[in-house]
Amino acid sequence: MKSYSNYDVIIIGAGPGGLAAAIYLKRAGITPLILESNSPGGNLNITHKIENYPGYVDGDGPTLAFRMYSQVEELDVPFKTEKVVSIKREDKNYSVITESNIYSAEYIVIASGKIPRKLDALNAQKYEGKGISYCTVCDGALYKNKVVAIIGGGNSAMESALYMSDLAGKVYVINRSSVLRADEKEQRDVITKKNVQIIYNSKVLEVIGTDDGVSKIKLDSGTTLDIDAVFVCIGQERNDAYYEKLMLKTDSKGILVDSNMKTSIGNVYACGDVVSKDLYQVVTATSEGALAATSIIKSIKNRSNF
Amino acid sequence: MKSYSNYDVIIIGAGPGGLAAAIYLKRAGITPLILESNSPGGNLNITHKIENYPGYVDGDGPTLAFRMYSQVEELDVPFKTEKVVSIKREDKNYSVITESNIYSAEYIVIASGKIPRKLDALNAQKYEGKGISYCTVCDGALYKNKVVAIIGGGNSAMESALYMSDLAGKVYVINRSSVLRADEKEQRDVITKKNVQIIYNSKVLEVIGTDDGVSKIKLDSGTTLDIDAVFVCIGQERNDAYYEKLMLKTDSKGILVDSNMKTSIGNVYACGDVVSKDLYQVVTATSEGALAATSIIKSIKNRSNF
Repeated sequence: MKSYSNYDVIIIGAGPGGLAAAIYLKRAGITPLILESNSPGGNLNITHKIENYPGYVDGDGPTLAFRMYSQVEELDVPFKTEKVVSIKREDKNYSVITESNIYSAEYIVIASGKIPRKLDALNAQKYEGKGISYCTVCDGALYKNKVVAIIGGGNSAMESALYMSDLAGKVYVINRSSVLRADEKEQRDVITKKNVQIIYNSKVLEVIGTDDGVSKIKLDSGTTLDIDAVFVCIGQERNDAYYEKLMLKTDSKGILVDSNMKTSIGNVYACGDVVSKDLYQVVTATSEGALAATSIIKSIKNRSNF
Repeated sequence: MKSYSNYDVIIIGAGPGGLAAAIYLKRAGITPLILESNSPGGNLNITHKIENYPGYVDGDGPTLAFRMYSQVEELDVPFKTEKVVSIKREDKNYSVITESNIYSAEYIVIASGKIPRKLDALNAQKYEGKGISYCTVCDGALYKNKVVAIIGGGNSAMESALYMSDLAGKVYVINRSSVLRADEKEQRDVITKKNVQIIYNSKVLEVIGTDDGVSKIKLDSGTTLDIDAVFVCIGQERNDAYYEKLMLKTDSKGILVDSNMKTSIGNVYACGDVVSKDLYQVVTATSEGALAATSIIKSIKNRSNF
């Protein structure tokens, strides 16, 4: 039998967005419940080096995750390691059903993030954070004048290739088929770059490296390329099954929100990688968490006058 | 005779927004020039305690300012301590004139912030950061169940009073005249709160305290109130004279920008406290700096194809 508890706000996901929302809510006197199926910090936990979160000079992702979570813990925000399976609207409240309990709240913050689709090649996992990366804006600066490979042929792969073309000495784009999926404009921007070479009809079979990191990739065509880093841009997966019934407006990039992080459904907010936006970064996620919380705080404080 | 130098991007102001923009630009291979009339960090340097910047657990504002600046320094971003006096558009470039030099750039990021208007009372300056604060969202949580005074009668004073009404035990609002300047809705929200008392026709003459911080304020009516903190909400001053000639669209809160921090004028961006928005925080400023930079990076990388 599932137990039942009621909260003002339930935050689903404890990545940078969800944790920021919790900090802002609790400091305003509103106690949210955080539900997270994994350890707090989200994708920070799989990020080797973080150099572009302003004020954070200590390097790795898990340490930043720990610091953010320690702020939330210090504030005594309830945190439960439970996987959310569905959300239902019932009158003025939302019921959030996890594998073991049912929680209810008037406000929901969806902050459950996205997981980059992994490269399916021998040793790819072994070199994650040691040359295998999912984000050029995050890690590209580490490979100045080096040789890098971008895996993928969609818009995000083209954007990554373009981003790296001014930084790296040489950029390979490895595409499975004979055509790129990206928009023509994006393709053209990349193709005109002199240091970018597109390799069609190819898959990465194996990642080869040393203790220092990646040094080569072997393709199914038989070619072996000397490279210093691989950026995997083959899409991202969102765990969106649990909020399907809410019928939130989305596009191909994620949940649609306004400038205060409100979704299309009353009292449901979203922040971080789960949202449709232009820039997926730690600093944008935390800002969005603060914005969602502030908007909820105003809504609750005004409501309680009536 | 002023010297002349040319850059891709000039960032005016080295608060959290400007420094974040610099980090993102330089990591993408674009070197901006930062112009700042004061020490880097902006209002962080006058902030005693920072508890709501996610991941920052070490307390004071100047240390966070130092960390952000050290990232920029590490990236070798040119930084000049010069006060900007005007910006002129000339063909495709902007000329930025400081007290000692002229710089030119295709892109401008205005990140020169705002300065809260100070409380003109005896000892007010002495207790800044020791009970005198300009931001309830930043410092309100330090005064749970305590007695606080909000100085001012505009919308920001009402918002601050409302924010504190659920946190503090008692909230005084001290207003100069016999009427509040705030919108009627904002006024009503505050007036219905049982623990808020509005004191009209009153000015603070003197702040009284101990080494631990503020303990009383003396009003010109002769009344002395026992309080633990004073939140000064009497407006902010923007140094906007230098960009007047650009004729940027603004409203009463600041420069109008789109979701990528573009102003109404081509290739001019703005971020941080100088912008018109709902939430003025360190975390929103850094996110906006990253967004402005990313938008400029895309613009520069696409342009260089033609």
